[in-house]
Amino acid sequence: MDEKDLKETQVSSKDVYDGSILHVKEDIIKLPNGKEASRELIRHIGAVCVVPVTSDGKVIMERQFRYPIDRVITEIPAGKLDSYDEDRLEAAKRELREETGYTASDWRDIGLYYPAPAYSDEKITMYLATGLTKGSRDLDEDEFLNIIEIPIEELVRDIVSGKITDGKTQVAVLKAYEIIRNA
Amino acid sequence: MDEKDLKETQVSSKDVYDGSILHVKEDIIKLPNGKEASRELIRHIGAVCVVPVTSDGKVIMERQFRYPIDRVITEIPAGKLDSYDEDRLEAAKRELREETGYTASDWRDIGLYYPAPAYSDEKITMYLATGLTKGSRDLDEDEFLNIIEIPIEELVRDIVSGKITDGKTQVAVLKAYEIIRNA
Repeated sequence: MDEKDLKETQVSSKDVYDGSILHVKEDIIKLPNGKEASRELIRHIGAVCVVPVTSDGKVIMERQFRYPIDRVITEIPAGKLDSYDEDRLEAAKRELREETGYTASDWRDIGLYYPAPAYSDEKITMYLATGLTKGSRDLDEDEFLNIIEIPIEELVRDIVSGKITDGKTQVAVLKAYEIIRNA
Repeated sequence: MDEKDLKETQVSSKDVYDGSILHVKEDIIKLPNGKEASRELIRHIGAVCVVPVTSDGKVIMERQFRYPIDRVITEIPAGKLDSYDEDRLEAAKRELREETGYTASDWRDIGLYYPAPAYSDEKITMYLATGLTKGSRDLDEDEFLNIIEIPIEELVRDIVSGKITDGKTQVAVLKAYEIIRNA
């Protein structure tokens, strides 16, 4: 069918949970066939993530416990925006500095990532950061994570083999690698 | 710190929203420093996605309206499990057939994808499907999507340039491409 006919339109919206991170709605929508249906969805403030690559080709990574999946996983630095209108590049610089201690002289926007567009509006902007200088970390009081460095070729192999399972990390590192390789 | 010391342990758990797709919990947890904190999280039934590649190197893709982000996006075929214990490969075969009409003779598990491990336990298993045969679609009554075919090299360029924004699609296609290229 014509693409404009795929659209679903809102009939009504109800707040069913309003947490500090997750804001859950139950909307009634009109389908392309005119029937009504319900949609459960999350409104999220948005986030950024960073692939920080050193001059000798290593990526600054984090080992962090993720409670929902009950395990420590390997991820790139990332974090939520502080406000809906926070500048995304500034947020990325802040998260990189606070979590890893690094600052970067060169920043490149490498695209958007919707983690779960079927039920969440969370939008993550991905950055490639190079020209790194090491400083000291500034973690939130209740934030616990270890920093490790992994050569980017090894990381790409670990993504392709399935060892890295975090979504944003897989996308952003594979994209960064394509961009670096084609530079 | 030692990795086992990064662990957060559950103190209590409360159901705050129990929808048909989203099951939201508010848990109290004990942090590595002994303090308590709260975690909002989603329990999700789990899902599968498929990169179906034709013998001439085209990927069978979907154009689908995603209500939370209010736009039509390009995605690979995917879907939720029917039950918590459904076999994931069977679910992938079902979703591919129902949504696109295609069946495949060769299936390869290309790894796991956690879309948002900070607040969701959703786990997506990714498959590469080849040896395709075209049949007829069998969409749910209230499912609306268009099928398009895109050469995999063009799709990879669209991912690297930022034109494709769906997370699972970016990951699974880049992985499939690495695997095909190295085969």
